[in-house]
Amino acid sequence: MTEIQASCTHTAAIARWRDGHWEHETDELAVETPVALVFNGVSHAVMLATPNHLIDFARGFALSEGIVPTAAEFYSAMVASSPQGHAVHCTISDSAFAQLGDRRRNMAGRTGCGLCGVETLDQVLRPLSNTLQAGADTPWLAVSAIRSALSQLAHHQPLNGITGGMHAAAWCDPRGDLALVCEDVGRHNALDKLIGRMAACRNTFDDGFLLISSRASVEMIQKAATVGIRNLVAISAPTALAVATAEKAGMTLIAFARGDRFVGYTHLERILTDD
Amino acid sequence: MTEIQASCTHTAAIARWRDGHWEHETDELAVETPVALVFNGVSHAVMLATPNHLIDFARGFALSEGIVPTAAEFYSAMVASSPQGHAVHCTISDSAFAQLGDRRRNMAGRTGCGLCGVETLDQVLRPLSNTLQAGADTPWLAVSAIRSALSQLAHHQPLNGITGGMHAAAWCDPRGDLALVCEDVGRHNALDKLIGRMAACRNTFDDGFLLISSRASVEMIQKAATVGIRNLVAISAPTALAVATAEKAGMTLIAFARGDRFVGYTHLERILTDD
Repeated sequence: MTEIQASCTHTAAIARWRDGHWEHETDELAVETPVALVFNGVSHAVMLATPNHLIDFARGFALSEGIVPTAAEFYSAMVASSPQGHAVHCTISDSAFAQLGDRRRNMAGRTGCGLCGVETLDQVLRPLSNTLQAGADTPWLAVSAIRSALSQLAHHQPLNGITGGMHAAAWCDPRGDLALVCEDVGRHNALDKLIGRMAACRNTFDDGFLLISSRASVEMIQKAATVGIRNLVAISAPTALAVATAEKAGMTLIAFARGDRFVGYTHLERILTDD
Repeated sequence: MTEIQASCTHTAAIARWRDGHWEHETDELAVETPVALVFNGVSHAVMLATPNHLIDFARGFALSEGIVPTAAEFYSAMVASSPQGHAVHCTISDSAFAQLGDRRRNMAGRTGCGLCGVETLDQVLRPLSNTLQAGADTPWLAVSAIRSALSQLAHHQPLNGITGGMHAAAWCDPRGDLALVCEDVGRHNALDKLIGRMAACRNTFDDGFLLISSRASVEMIQKAATVGIRNLVAISAPTALAVATAEKAGMTLIAFARGDRFVGYTHLERILTDD
């Protein structure tokens, strides 16, 4: 099982307009590549993604979309490259594949779009596990930790620093130190890479919080809740459906988090303000 | 054919953390709703979108995804709402529907994801028409017009002004005045609404440029090129694949456009700098 070594940035000749004239120079662009996820030989989805950590990406996608219930049922993966893009060939357990097959047969002759494999309204808001609701108020989320994580994030986004065109998903420990940061041109992909990498290292989401550089849409909440993330801090805005879904899932949702300010939307009982 | 009247913002109780304490107040959130697009009775895709201008959205999606070759083959549409979301039932020409059926039968028993109805690598980068390449250097894109459009945009994003969580796509005339602005929680959706509304008004993209509040990913270039847009200005970063696709399609691509500065990537021969 080897991870593909692919370049995530591309040097291009550009022309910068400033002070009333062109400056011709080179700059680094974010590479965006089609990536097909194939489970037990059947192609499931194609995403446009940054071509690093593709096996983590596939593992995280399988977990966050509920294709495998645990990382133990994601057996192995390998990457095959072609001029069209990359395909990640994943082997999952027979039972997980049978369930996926059932889902897919229900959609035979139809296509999904925008949401992964979803093509009717009923399928959009999949039921989330209620484990979060049963939990206590932990893990705590300290205001000082949010502040600390925010101040560190920009220094741990090397690809965004070079290209200005990448999202990041970071797992932060209870003190707000960044345990892991993943980058991608797509915000969902960055989160899936993080989830997949955490699972590969047998790390859990029991203690700490998720920090995302983007908006908090409902899909981000669904993915995070599915893998048991209880605290989510977003730099940008949430949607109404994201807030409603986080509330129901027992997730603490913070957004518009910048510097020493943020807005709390759901389950603020976990937030420690004495610091 | 009536457009649904739906609220695009939702009032929520929030807690704002600033200066070391909570301030409890209400704020407006962007509504994000599942929207199913149904063509001649067959459900094609579900997207999470802002629930306004849904018929424009469906018409624009049909055009930008090449489902109908012209707006004349998009006969009619109506919106049906349910607790799960909205469905836009569209009637397209028999020949367009037959072609869509062929595409879908090829994917029978499989699902697409991330990209509309796409499930193998070959299908990602659909061929674009070459009409742009045959064109002359027009429409010109004046530096002064870019500057003017950028200065106006924020004043024409009412939903983003309220929620801070919406993207915008604007059609700008050759002087940089905003002819039409559409907003949505999704950047692709905002563009599709713009395309659909322009088509409904029998406006063309012959003269002027597209301004988007977001990044320029390859899907944005594909949608724009498919409907004949020749000039695209993005506020944020482009990807390498977007630049390559714009180059091939004969499209002038500007990004990182802010204030009096921007970066030019492709077909700069259309840009008028004497102003």
